Parts: sequence; C-alpha cells; structure tokens
Amino acid sequence: MGRTGRTGRFAKTIDMQLSIIKIGGNIIDDEAKLELFLDAFAAVKGKKILVHGGGRLATKVATGLGVQQQMIDGRRITDAETLKIVTMVYAGTINKNIVARLQAKGCNAMGLTGADGNSILAHKRVHPTIDYGFVGDVDAVDASLLTSLLMLDKTLVFAPITHDGAGQLLNTNADTIAQEIARALCRTFDTSLVYSFEKSGVLLDADDDSTVIGRIDPAYYQELKQKQAIFAGMIPKLDNAFAALNSGVGKVIIGRAEQLPQLLTGASGTTIVHD
Amino acid sequence: MGRTGRTGRFAKTIDMQLSIIKIGGNIIDDEAKLELFLDAFAAVKGKKILVHGGGRLATKVATGLGVQQQMIDGRRITDAETLKIVTMVYAGTINKNIVARLQAKGCNAMGLTGADGNSILAHKRVHPTIDYGFVGDVDAVDASLLTSLLMLDKTLVFAPITHDGAGQLLNTNADTIAQEIARALCRTFDTSLVYSFEKSGVLLDADDDSTVIGRIDPAYYQELKQKQAIFAGMIPKLDNAFAALNSGVGKVIIGRAEQLPQLLTGASGTTIVHD
Repeated sequence: MGRTGRTGRFAKTIDMQLSIIKIGGNIIDDEAKLELFLDAFAAVKGKKILVHGGGRLATKVATGLGVQQQMIDGRRITDAETLKIVTMVYAGTINKNIVARLQAKGCNAMGLTGADGNSILAHKRVHPTIDYGFVGDVDAVDASLLTSLLMLDKTLVFAPITHDGAGQLLNTNADTIAQEIARALCRTFDTSLVYSFEKSGVLLDADDDSTVIGRIDPAYYQELKQKQAIFAGMIPKLDNAFAALNSGVGKVIIGRAEQLPQLLTGASGTTIVHD
Repeated sequence: MGRTGRTGRFAKTIDMQLSIIKIGGNIIDDEAKLELFLDAFAAVKGKKILVHGGGRLATKVATGLGVQQQMIDGRRITDAETLKIVTMVYAGTINKNIVARLQAKGCNAMGLTGADGNSILAHKRVHPTIDYGFVGDVDAVDASLLTSLLMLDKTLVFAPITHDGAGQLLNTNADTIAQEIARALCRTFDTSLVYSFEKSGVLLDADDDSTVIGRIDPAYYQELKQKQAIFAGMIPKLDNAFAALNSGVGKVIIGRAEQLPQLLTGASGTTIVHD
C-alpha cells in the first residue's frame, strides 16, 4: 500500500499523512548512518515526528563523571544520578544536535521532552519486586498541543524523557513514546508508525536478512505464530504493533532506519496492517 | 506605573501583557532561591518568557569530564568540547528541570533553544583579534512562532543556546537573548523586560543597597551620567535598556530575582522607561 492511500479504520479530523519514526542508539552512535538517516527524514513528505533513543554517549558521560551504572536482570536502573546523565545527554546533546542538523537540511524541527508543554505525562513505574528508579510509564499525550505544533509546520523531535506533573523528570522507553504519540494522534492524522531496528524487518529466518516478511495482517500473524515461524523475541513487538493498529494507527512498519524512504512506501521492511 | 498600564510607544497587535524575565547563575545555583523564584514566576499574570543563564554546574561537569576551560581576558572561550558541555547542562539539565518544576506549579512551560523551531537564528561571533569559539550573536527571532506558542498558553523557557541554521549550535549570552526576544515581540505585546541581578537595582551608592533609583527616564539618565552619579559598570546595561525601549519595549526593570512580584509592580528595583 502506498503512502497516499487512506489507512486506518477511523475517519481522520485532518486529511494529512503523519509519519512517526523511532530511531535507536544504533543510528545515533554511528555518525555516517545518522547523517544519511537525517537526510532521508528531512525529505519525508507530510507531517512527521522523530522519537530518538539514547545510545552509548550516556554511558560514556556517566563513566567520565564516575556515576556507576546499576543493572538488574539486564535492565539499567535509573537512579537519581543516572537520571541527571540521561537528561543531559538525551534532552541536551542528542536532541539539540538532531534539531540543529535538521534545521540545516530545511526541516523546521522542534525538540521536546514530555515535560515541555506537558506533552507527555507519565508516572514512576511501580513494580512488585524491582525498583526501576526514575523510569516513567506513559499516562497521557496532549494530542491537541502536538497537533497545533504540527499545524505550525514544525517537525517534532522527542527525547525519551517524560515527567510526572509533580516536578519529576522520568526516563522513558522511546518505543513506548512513539507508540503512545501514534495512538494519541491517529484520530487526527492518517498515521504511520515506523520502528527502526537493526534488521531489515520481521524475518522468517532470524539469521537471514533476505527472508523479510513484507506484510503481516492479523490472520497471517496467527498463522505465523501457530507455525512458530517467527523468532520469539519479535512477538512482543508485533503484539504492540497490533495494539497500536487496534487503537486506530493506520500501519506499523518495522525495518532498517537506513531504508526509511523504502520503509514508508512499503518497498522494504515489514508493514503491519489491520486488514 | 502599574502593570496594567499601557506602556511603550507603539500600538500593540495583541492587547496583552508579556513579561520577559532573565535569571542568571546566582539564582540557578542556589536551590532555595530558585524554588522561591519559580513560585513567584509561576504566579506572574499574563504571557511570560523566562530566559535562564548557566551557573556553576557547567564548570563542575567540565571538570568532571576533564574539559579544560579556556579563558581570554576574563571571558570563557567556547571551544567544541565546552559547547558540548553547555548544550548538555543548559539545554538538558537546567532547562528541563526548570520546565518540570514549573509544570508542578501549574505553569505550562515549554523549554526551547534557538534551534528549536528556528526560533533564534545567530551567527558565530566575528572578532578581529579574539576567537570566542562557538559563541553566537543573534540575527533574528521568529516573533510569529513565539506569538503562536504564547497564544497556545505556553510559558516559554529559553536556554542560552542558539544556532546558525547550518547545523551549528552556539553558546549565546542570556541577557542578549532576553533583549532580542523583547525587541521582536514588543510590537505584538505590551512588553516588560526584567533583568535579574545580584543587587536591588541601579544604585546611587554602589555599596548601599538602600540607594536604589526607582525610575529612570532619558532626561534623568543624562543628568545621572553628567553628575557621574552611577557606577560606570551599570552604563552598558542602561544603554542596552534604552536601546530596547527605543525599539518599542514598554519598560525595562533591573533588580533582584527574589523580588520578582515587586519588580513587576514597580515597588522594587529600577524601572527604566522611555518617557
């Protein structure tokens, strides 16, 4: 399905395409890849939002400043000192450099955290046994504000930081932020959600990048799961994608950030659709 | 003159008060003072913009990361490593913490650098003998964007970072940013510009805080200069204030950030007016 096609199950308030694109540390850490990605992102037509993750710089700065990284079960715990580092690096260094570079490419970017304009309200994660520290789970996205900014012809660039409304910043998963923004805006815009990824898409053979599945709908997903034809690690990602589609997101695309133009046309990656 | 009075020499497009308030490192570095200031700032009626400077945290982080501070003639030179530090600390740590804390006080704050939305375009300073490094002198403020954001009921919080439109972030004096924003918006709003300061205002006796001059107009300023009745160090600040008034800014106020409500009513500090 081309980008000009009407997607999603609901009539939209504003008849415009919105692309929400998440990039992770693998792109941010690689200067050449980031430059190519930003060129491709700047060229995307229609309204667009970039959500970026962190990358190795936070670890480098933490090491430099003598802040120990606490890990529990492979997860980084965001203690108060780590929160200071990620706020510096994600909302400061990475966000503002991406914004300035997009401006140079003719893309009128505006950087935000969830605290800015109260755009994303979250609460500190509650878990029965693990204290994740200052990690936020999203409660609400201000769709009205984001729509107003997009209609001012700004391209929004979100750092993975939210707040609790009581003065506390919170480290928040960039995939989750992208999904929550897509869910909040999909009634207004014809919304595509793109998750960039270190592989070319959802693969039939996890070790063979040429086995990308181009399109998955709910029936085919059930079939793939029954046959155990997809890597178990992809199942939570796909479940999340279908949850987004059920909320009204037009399509979810998973693939390499380096192939952004092709991902948006469906020529690369895996496009997940409702029907 | 009270805040409800019509100030400035030009008719305004929007009949609303706008207060642009600059705070420096002396407030940012003092947790108790900052908290009281943010309470007072959140309570200011009408549209408002906060411009914050840096503070000691940048030096602390630079020392921690082993970045040497270059000083020439008492001025910090912003080399590439220092720019990284100030971007982290000013646009990340300080800006986002102020925004989150204002949100908690019911003030819908949005943090910006000049790169965000291309709100403040600058160029790298050119000087015949000193290379200041990545320091920006302001060329243009996007009054239309700032007006739109203010009319969305957002309170803008500017970090002292701008960009050159070609991908380069630039360290920029917070006093200058405040003044350039005031000049850009004073045709639209009834604009007051407040410079916070470590003294109670412009003093007749630099060592006696009780000798604050409450009000200075151009005739009185000439008289004070002729009598050499004011500290020479204040003259560039006052010249800048009159330049702002000549551009259409309604009034310029100089005084202690701790006395913000009284500064705005004219009960404290020095109010500088055109006539």
